[in-house]
Amino acid sequence: MPPRLEDRPNMRLLGQAGSRQYLSTPALILDLDAFEANVAAMASWARETGIGLRPHAKTHKSSRIAKALIAAGAKGSSVATISEAEAFVDAGVGGVLITSTLVTGDKIARLVALNDRARDLMVIADDPGNVEKLAGAASAAKPLNVMIDVEVGSGRTGVVGTASVINLIERVNSYPSLRFAGLQAYNGSVQAIPGHSDRAAKLDADLTPLRELLAALSARGVKPPIVSGGGTGTHQLDAKSGLFTELQPGSYIVMDRIYGACDLRGSGLGTFRHSLFVRTSVISTAKPGYVTTDAGLKAFSTDSGAPVIATGAPQGATYSFKGDEHGRISFAEPGQSMAIGHQVECVPPHCDPTVNLYDCYHVVRGDTLVDIWPIDGRGHW
Amino acid sequence: MPPRLEDRPNMRLLGQAGSRQYLSTPALILDLDAFEANVAAMASWARETGIGLRPHAKTHKSSRIAKALIAAGAKGSSVATISEAEAFVDAGVGGVLITSTLVTGDKIARLVALNDRARDLMVIADDPGNVEKLAGAASAAKPLNVMIDVEVGSGRTGVVGTASVINLIERVNSYPSLRFAGLQAYNGSVQAIPGHSDRAAKLDADLTPLRELLAALSARGVKPPIVSGGGTGTHQLDAKSGLFTELQPGSYIVMDRIYGACDLRGSGLGTFRHSLFVRTSVISTAKPGYVTTDAGLKAFSTDSGAPVIATGAPQGATYSFKGDEHGRISFAEPGQSMAIGHQVECVPPHCDPTVNLYDCYHVVRGDTLVDIWPIDGRGHW
Repeated sequence: MPPRLEDRPNMRLLGQAGSRQYLSTPALILDLDAFEANVAAMASWARETGIGLRPHAKTHKSSRIAKALIAAGAKGSSVATISEAEAFVDAGVGGVLITSTLVTGDKIARLVALNDRARDLMVIADDPGNVEKLAGAASAAKPLNVMIDVEVGSGRTGVVGTASVINLIERVNSYPSLRFAGLQAYNGSVQAIPGHSDRAAKLDADLTPLRELLAALSARGVKPPIVSGGGTGTHQLDAKSGLFTELQPGSYIVMDRIYGACDLRGSGLGTFRHSLFVRTSVISTAKPGYVTTDAGLKAFSTDSGAPVIATGAPQGATYSFKGDEHGRISFAEPGQSMAIGHQVECVPPHCDPTVNLYDCYHVVRGDTLVDIWPIDGRGHW
Repeated sequence: MPPRLEDRPNMRLLGQAGSRQYLSTPALILDLDAFEANVAAMASWARETGIGLRPHAKTHKSSRIAKALIAAGAKGSSVATISEAEAFVDAGVGGVLITSTLVTGDKIARLVALNDRARDLMVIADDPGNVEKLAGAASAAKPLNVMIDVEVGSGRTGVVGTASVINLIERVNSYPSLRFAGLQAYNGSVQAIPGHSDRAAKLDADLTPLRELLAALSARGVKPPIVSGGGTGTHQLDAKSGLFTELQPGSYIVMDRIYGACDLRGSGLGTFRHSLFVRTSVISTAKPGYVTTDAGLKAFSTDSGAPVIATGAPQGATYSFKGDEHGRISFAEPGQSMAIGHQVECVPPHCDPTVNLYDCYHVVRGDTLVDIWPIDGRGHW
């Protein structure tokens, strides 16, 4: 098993000026200045806009970061898995919303046990049979908060059709062991559409079912306590839609190549800076025109193109994968070179699955390693 | 942090008949019957062929599996990182060959410390300055075994040119703290070429520098103690080349979609069965034509296409990624369906980076969970 954080080689560098330059690689870097600026910018925008935030931890998987976001005003933390929820609740995070359906007996049992020791835990549901199973497992002594998941374009979980949603809400309300907590309407498919106007148009069309549902509920005198959805790419549009009480963006705290390639016009994305990097060392200079590094397919997500070199390489150099454990930095000009042992930092292609590859963040302030934060929500269990 | 293995939910299913069907998902499955057949088939082929095996642990990252391979006749274990080497040596694995260059001061210090407590540890080098640093750190009391890495088509680490290799061997021989252990000549780029004759032709051309080098060394009376290289896709061709004393295949123990798509003619690949699967549960059936599962971008590698459904889904169904934590099973025929909570198993697109996402193997014999093996070499540290 990996050594405890306190036994890792990089721990000896904590607090040493310039230590960012000498980390054992590959290392996941969190630049605190940029991270804190991102957290503050979104928090201040949300305050001014009058909308809640329950930022999504599928990006960071760290109870430490969830707490930092709550300290900045977030209502809690959205999470993707029961294991993230357990790690966060047991670290003292309140207001955890599990944004995936939990349908098997083992996970429902863990959910109910977790609910007993949690503050304001919520889970989503999109199926009558699942609601019945949740109701059977939960207890009226501490009812389980259930949000109904509504399909608005993600094509994953989510009920289709106003009548079906209303039916499911009534079913939740019929059980004393459950409490109707509101609606989730998340649209992952629209978040990273590069063009701003394309993104706005698709979002507007995709939100039609939610608009109709809320009107139908209003006509029946039903006001969902929470309507949660939205993300980094659409947060300003989500707020303008007037449909949500709170948003669950994740990537804005770190950003990545995907969001870096989005058209920023009017989307508020220009506010956010890259705070997440993978640091890698040159381990071979044996060939002309390129050098080989120690960060390959296991050090970056591979679902969204190649890493983008942020610092440390000659002008115009590009990064590519060369297998499980190797990367390549190709030079743009003849005569460019890099010395063996030299380090570069790259912006990951996609933040969430990149973070998922690591056990800890190397937290830096400028050029100094100031802390190491465990990624305590990672892994499947 | 993730719970200890002994505290995980799936532990309670150990030894229960049919428990494979009820695992908490997503779960990485190792099918023992297929795994053992693969290990035995390669071992028996190597024995008959008279070639050594030092299977590559970048595939499995498990000291338990490394020991099983040694018990079946392997000379040791190839590894990709210093952290894998440390985990394996400290678990009692001998004959570890680190197939990446270690060039930074922190890693060289760990390498030398590890060499003091290891049996027959080896590392590669492709750079004169690196050899000098290794020599300065190592001690004549227990010399460090150094293999010279030769470029044969991978385009990663590896010296180009017979004269440069000979120069580097002489440099290694000049230091009492180093011992020339042989040559590494690994060609990752050719392993998974789908057509057998294309693969054979490219390999033959790529091995030319090694052929010339060995002839030049022979003319000088130098016989490298070890010549290591080759992989699953080319192992029969590697042996026929007569250039290698041992091979370092990895994927054959588990196989994957990549190797499943290779033309098997005369390559020996037809011998090997899929033993590695990702098990996932249906968590939403709210839409017609498809269901949503709990295994997405964080449960599979994404560098080599989509997972292939092995068992559990209707005829013709296909798998696709729907974000970080979700997958989709799309039906081929109208009227096909799957119940909520139903589980399927998929062949991963690429075995090595898929294993790297998990902390343990769920080891099954038929339909029974019989053990849980830690993936003790995973992670970067």
